[in-house]
Amino acid sequence: MQDIENKWTEVEQAIAQEAFEKAYKREVSALVEQVRARSHGLLALEDLWNLHDFLSAKRHEIDGKYDYDYSVLLFVFANLIKDGWLHLDELKSLNQDKFAKVAALTRL
Amino acid sequence: MQDIENKWTEVEQAIAQEAFEKAYKREVSALVEQVRARSHGLLALEDLWNLHDFLSAKRHEIDGKYDYDYSVLLFVFANLIKDGWLHLDELKSLNQDKFAKVAALTRL
Repeated sequence: MQDIENKWTEVEQAIAQEAFEKAYKREVSALVEQVRARSHGLLALEDLWNLHDFLSAKRHEIDGKYDYDYSVLLFVFANLIKDGWLHLDELKSLNQDKFAKVAALTRL
Repeated sequence: MQDIENKWTEVEQAIAQEAFEKAYKREVSALVEQVRARSHGLLALEDLWNLHDFLSAKRHEIDGKYDYDYSVLLFVFANLIKDGWLHLDELKSLNQDKFAKVAALTRL
């Protein structure tokens, strides 16, 4: 199983990178929209500090999540699919074992 | 001089509290406007993290500044005047010595 995770052909690397960037762009763009929407309702200092807390949490989450590392990439993909930022079929051109592993992980 | 800072009649306390709250409301309302305006220009993740850094700094600054403590209130007032959140004439009903001290501090 370790082989599946550590051996990435150039073609697979390109597919993985594209999928990773797609998920990243989708999540960032949803987050930007969310912050814009929240900012319309800003009235009091408490709202600003709530926004600040929200951004602190998101920054921590995103910085951790989008660490591009092939040894954990199948797990990262499974989580991105579970969170709705990636579709399983966007990984269908990966090697069959990798695809099967990601599919299995999304069902955990 | 210590007496001036520590002795506050009930009337002076009411004047001080009103001035303090006015400054606070002005600064908060300007900050809310500033964050709303910034949020219209949000495009990328970097903009969100810049906003996050800005809110972190403002939170730290405001939490420290609006500590209502009579022993340092004349200094706080002088700083609020220098920053434009309070007008010196809003303190004109304070005891003459206090008013003179704040006026002097704003010129430092």
